[in-house]
Amino acid sequence: MSRIAARRRVTRITVGEPPRRRADFLAAEEPLEIRVGGKALTVTMRTPGSDVELAAGFLVSEGVVHSADEFATARYCDGAVTTGDDGVSTNTYNVLDVALAPGVAPPDPSIERNFYTTSSCGVCGKASIDAVATVSRYTVDEDPLRIDPATLAGFPDALRAGQAVFERTGGLHAAALFDGGTGEMLVLREDVGRHNAVDKVIGWALLNDRLPARGCVLMVSGRASFELAQKALMAGIPMLAAVSAPSSLAAELASEAGLTLVGFLRGPSMVVYSREDRLALDGPSAIG
Amino acid sequence: MSRIAARRRVTRITVGEPPRRRADFLAAEEPLEIRVGGKALTVTMRTPGSDVELAAGFLVSEGVVHSADEFATARYCDGAVTTGDDGVSTNTYNVLDVALAPGVAPPDPSIERNFYTTSSCGVCGKASIDAVATVSRYTVDEDPLRIDPATLAGFPDALRAGQAVFERTGGLHAAALFDGGTGEMLVLREDVGRHNAVDKVIGWALLNDRLPARGCVLMVSGRASFELAQKALMAGIPMLAAVSAPSSLAAELASEAGLTLVGFLRGPSMVVYSREDRLALDGPSAIG
Repeated sequence: MSRIAARRRVTRITVGEPPRRRADFLAAEEPLEIRVGGKALTVTMRTPGSDVELAAGFLVSEGVVHSADEFATARYCDGAVTTGDDGVSTNTYNVLDVALAPGVAPPDPSIERNFYTTSSCGVCGKASIDAVATVSRYTVDEDPLRIDPATLAGFPDALRAGQAVFERTGGLHAAALFDGGTGEMLVLREDVGRHNAVDKVIGWALLNDRLPARGCVLMVSGRASFELAQKALMAGIPMLAAVSAPSSLAAELASEAGLTLVGFLRGPSMVVYSREDRLALDGPSAIG
Repeated sequence: MSRIAARRRVTRITVGEPPRRRADFLAAEEPLEIRVGGKALTVTMRTPGSDVELAAGFLVSEGVVHSADEFATARYCDGAVTTGDDGVSTNTYNVLDVALAPGVAPPDPSIERNFYTTSSCGVCGKASIDAVATVSRYTVDEDPLRIDPATLAGFPDALRAGQAVFERTGGLHAAALFDGGTGEMLVLREDVGRHNAVDKVIGWALLNDRLPARGCVLMVSGRASFELAQKALMAGIPMLAAVSAPSSLAAELASEAGLTLVGFLRGPSMVVYSREDRLALDGPSAIG
């Protein structure tokens, strides 16, 4: 049994029919503590697998690392053990310690608040948007990506086809990075947490020396929140496409930063919230 | 314009047809800083509205308060202002300060980690489950709730019918509390964050002196994670039902704590992951 899906006895009920008891698969969820230089930074509930990418992507999203050479090593903490009924201790593989390269500043302990509030009483959407601009090393505003809507229309099917675990469990979000020029899917990751799936994809890009991910499209299986737009921007990705709705603040951030935001991408139809000039539109436009 | 949906110009594209530009509504997302006794505790991205309930429910979920009399007052911070282009300052309504009743212990600053890790290197699902048992004041194991699957089958339609903002934006999660005896929906709340929608519902229950919410069913529009099962348990709710899949750790926590967990609740069909004895099943059961 892999660690990304767990088998369990369940009862299926349909009103008016006898209940059926059978085995089913559930998406695995376990805590991961990310440490930097031995110091605990965050704990996230995630689906095990691609943990080094997850940690790397988290550090990109938070502005700590920007290229593969700044991320030195990552290893599971030896002391993180669980003891079974038989008295045998095994590593939990739930504590990952990252070493940054010499000269890379360690993260601020209050890192998770940086994007939400810049001053003691200035908590508002505008402050959150300004914080992304302040922290991000890359800009996407000038990215010359231009993509045919017919190419984008194929992304949801590619995403679903790549979701091996979702097929069994129905319980995982997916994120994928596509090359906007060729339409090729570069990487796909799944997780119970949407933000984790995105961090894994961005971590993959970091570790493969692909940041900033110019000319790429980040596609997600669910909705597009402020946090996901922030992550795209921190990785230098010029387009974020989501199967479902974006939030108001995701759209505002996208507009301010020059990120193309596409929502409700379902087969041939989609809604564009910002920077539609990156979509190759033919013919006259109708005012609906 | 309400603060829970924002109007925006968008472009609808269908491959092969001219683009249509029109106004659309997006689910609002803004940061909320929750303070206790003037001290910042957490910042969450939420949909404005029911903020006092959100703060109250968050404090229940984290084990800080257990009854309405422990939650004294909540008010928006006067100093949290944003200054417009016209130089006029207005309250952001994004910083809420909660006062606890005398004698109620203020929260631990590391509160958000309590449920994920109990000791420095003991981060694992089992430790997270044990932490809930340690912190929770209520137990649901003995709750005599018994409900007909046909009653449960009506909950998703009731949830959807109550989602006023979702209808316009497609962008909000919903959570609702149902009386398991009568099938009546007691309260429904919406939010861009699923955990926030649940906190608002639990906060409503706290402020209306309904905790522990014995005999009730918490219904959510999306998936059931560990965090949502934890919140149900902290509020003394004996049944959690979700439209989509649960995670492995949500099912494990439910089993350990005696919470009935129902997933894939879609009209007449559903899957039960734990404590199916609370579902009134007739007729012989088939082994599938």
